[in-house]
Amino acid sequence: MQIAIVLYPEFTALDVIGPYEVLGRLPGAEIVFVAEKPGLVRNDLGTLAVDVVAGLASITRPDVVVIGGGPGQVDQMKDGPLHEWLRAVDEHTTWTMSVCTGSLILAAAGLLRGRRATTHWGALDQLAHFGVTPTEDRVVVDGKYLIGAGVSAGIDAALTLAGRIAGDQTAQAVQLIIEYDPRPPYSAGSTATAPEPVRRAATSMLTPRHPG
Amino acid sequence: MQIAIVLYPEFTALDVIGPYEVLGRLPGAEIVFVAEKPGLVRNDLGTLAVDVVAGLASITRPDVVVIGGGPGQVDQMKDGPLHEWLRAVDEHTTWTMSVCTGSLILAAAGLLRGRRATTHWGALDQLAHFGVTPTEDRVVVDGKYLIGAGVSAGIDAALTLAGRIAGDQTAQAVQLIIEYDPRPPYSAGSTATAPEPVRRAATSMLTPRHPG
Repeated sequence: MQIAIVLYPEFTALDVIGPYEVLGRLPGAEIVFVAEKPGLVRNDLGTLAVDVVAGLASITRPDVVVIGGGPGQVDQMKDGPLHEWLRAVDEHTTWTMSVCTGSLILAAAGLLRGRRATTHWGALDQLAHFGVTPTEDRVVVDGKYLIGAGVSAGIDAALTLAGRIAGDQTAQAVQLIIEYDPRPPYSAGSTATAPEPVRRAATSMLTPRHPG
Repeated sequence: MQIAIVLYPEFTALDVIGPYEVLGRLPGAEIVFVAEKPGLVRNDLGTLAVDVVAGLASITRPDVVVIGGGPGQVDQMKDGPLHEWLRAVDEHTTWTMSVCTGSLILAAAGLLRGRRATTHWGALDQLAHFGVTPTEDRVVVDGKYLIGAGVSAGIDAALTLAGRIAGDQTAQAVQLIIEYDPRPPYSAGSTATAPEPVRRAATSMLTPRHPG
């Protein structure tokens, strides 16, 4: 089972590494990081560079595609090689997954029209521009599209996908291996629970270009 | 505030990327990945290669050190350049942090003697060999040592550290930015909650060399 994880400049690392850590542990999973421009792909914070060997042209029939978000998402919204590739491989995938603002890229490529989806809370209103119904669920499954909310939601989304792919017991075993028994020290992880001053602080810390 | 994140071959990606995503967003944080052998450092699953520019000798006074775990931890237990570096920089750090079996490396370097600590559940019994009192807490703070349990616990540990470094409101803002409002689809993330067949499956999926 080939799982292609798309990287692009200014990606958010946890968006993709959360799912990678879960899906990469499934029996028979072959993970490949893929980018339009292979080589070192640098993240949004600028201090992490991942060596990507595979270009889009070399990955033609992945079983699963995963795309994350990050400030660089805004540069991936125009029709072009990545959208063409996403449309082509999506014809054959078993699952197409996104985390955070990665769903906006899938939506811009035309893959989510008429479907329900989510994204980072700071970008939720953008989904409707692409004919997508936004939801505030942390993980949305609509057909073969498995869509996670912002950044860390990729772990929950990937465990959900792991259950669909490999069964509940294997997914649970992966959860135990990564000791995913979360105990956040605060209850500020969603706009519903974060106090107003925290929401303001978070908004001011997000880049001008893009949330998350 | 310089935060040095140690990588070594066969590290577990989420162990370090969780804390990176949190700590890297703190105002004034300067993150540097550091390795005994700079260049491409490959993770335990073998499919992620991070380009590390900084060698140990070039990072002499980090304010914070973070070390994660993974199967490669077993190769980092002998006294040598990494232990020497950890002991030297620890004399000046404000915080020394580990995730997963990274605490065994700190312990082997002699830094946790007489302290409380935790690690991945599969390795908890090893801490006592180094004069460390094992605890089953997900995050342990003992003096300036901030120790997280397995893999995903690094996110909780880093948010705890973020609060100590930058205050509760900033830590909460980071929690909101990474939308850390976890909703695991299963309750199998700890040995206390995972059913016995899941525990057996997880144990059989862990590498022979080392858990997590």
